[in-house]
Amino acid sequence: MLNEQPNAVLVIGAIAGWKATLDKADKLFTSLDDTALYQEIAPGRNRLIYLWGHLTAMHDRMLAILGISERVHPELDEVFLTSPDKGAELPSAETVRSWWSEVSTKLNGGIDAFSASDWLAKHNVVSDADFAKEPLRNRFSILLSRTNHLSHHLGQAALVRR
Amino acid sequence: MLNEQPNAVLVIGAIAGWKATLDKADKLFTSLDDTALYQEIAPGRNRLIYLWGHLTAMHDRMLAILGISERVHPELDEVFLTSPDKGAELPSAETVRSWWSEVSTKLNGGIDAFSASDWLAKHNVVSDADFAKEPLRNRFSILLSRTNHLSHHLGQAALVRR
Repeated sequence: MLNEQPNAVLVIGAIAGWKATLDKADKLFTSLDDTALYQEIAPGRNRLIYLWGHLTAMHDRMLAILGISERVHPELDEVFLTSPDKGAELPSAETVRSWWSEVSTKLNGGIDAFSASDWLAKHNVVSDADFAKEPLRNRFSILLSRTNHLSHHLGQAALVRR
Repeated sequence: MLNEQPNAVLVIGAIAGWKATLDKADKLFTSLDDTALYQEIAPGRNRLIYLWGHLTAMHDRMLAILGISERVHPELDEVFLTSPDKGAELPSAETVRSWWSEVSTKLNGGIDAFSASDWLAKHNVVSDADFAKEPLRNRFSILLSRTNHLSHHLGQAALVRR
């Protein structure tokens, strides 16, 4: 869609930023063995395995918010969104690894299938009435804010000694 | 420019994301006194004052990359970009505070003055020939990547005990 229209160029740029950031996260987390994953990012702070599960939960929610599909692992929320680290029993590293890969693949498939104008449409957590008043609450805003969320936690994960 | 055209909506969304992130950084760093600013984000890692100066240097470079103005504090680079923390003598906290504010104001003024189509134009670190081949190397890509860069370091700064 690159040569179609100016908004396509903006969308493609934002998707490239999302994918580059997701790819960095994927390389970082999948390079770690189970022992490394249970390290804290700083003394008394979240463990890497918790951050990884937290990101997986947020990305699983994106599937529904963007209207790509139903969520595939809503059970992530109780452990990785509503509980702090060490507040609930975590699934195994193998499970987090597998769910991260599953969610990433499904999410990028959905992202690739949207047209430029799909990104301007409302996401699923805003009503028609509110969207009429606030046209910035579109799918594109979710893509940008989740890329930033991912960068925020990647900055933290990068602090771990390897 | 909101009702003009679809690409304006995308640009306004991205600028809103940049400003919200810059505002978070501003609130965090300006709330800290000099003692707090000399804390490390984690044992043996960068100090907050270094991160703040590093962000100021990156944003000062944005002035030139986006074509807003000449840089105002290129002397930041030697201390905050090419040297690691504790590798060079830092300017005072008062200086960093003042330069951050100066650069932020100038940068946001320039950002607000661009039209939607200005964001699709090439930035100043790519040649005309390369831009013809790689149209994603536009001003917009700089805005998105610097928002992510800021989020990356904000995630780290958030780890400091207050």
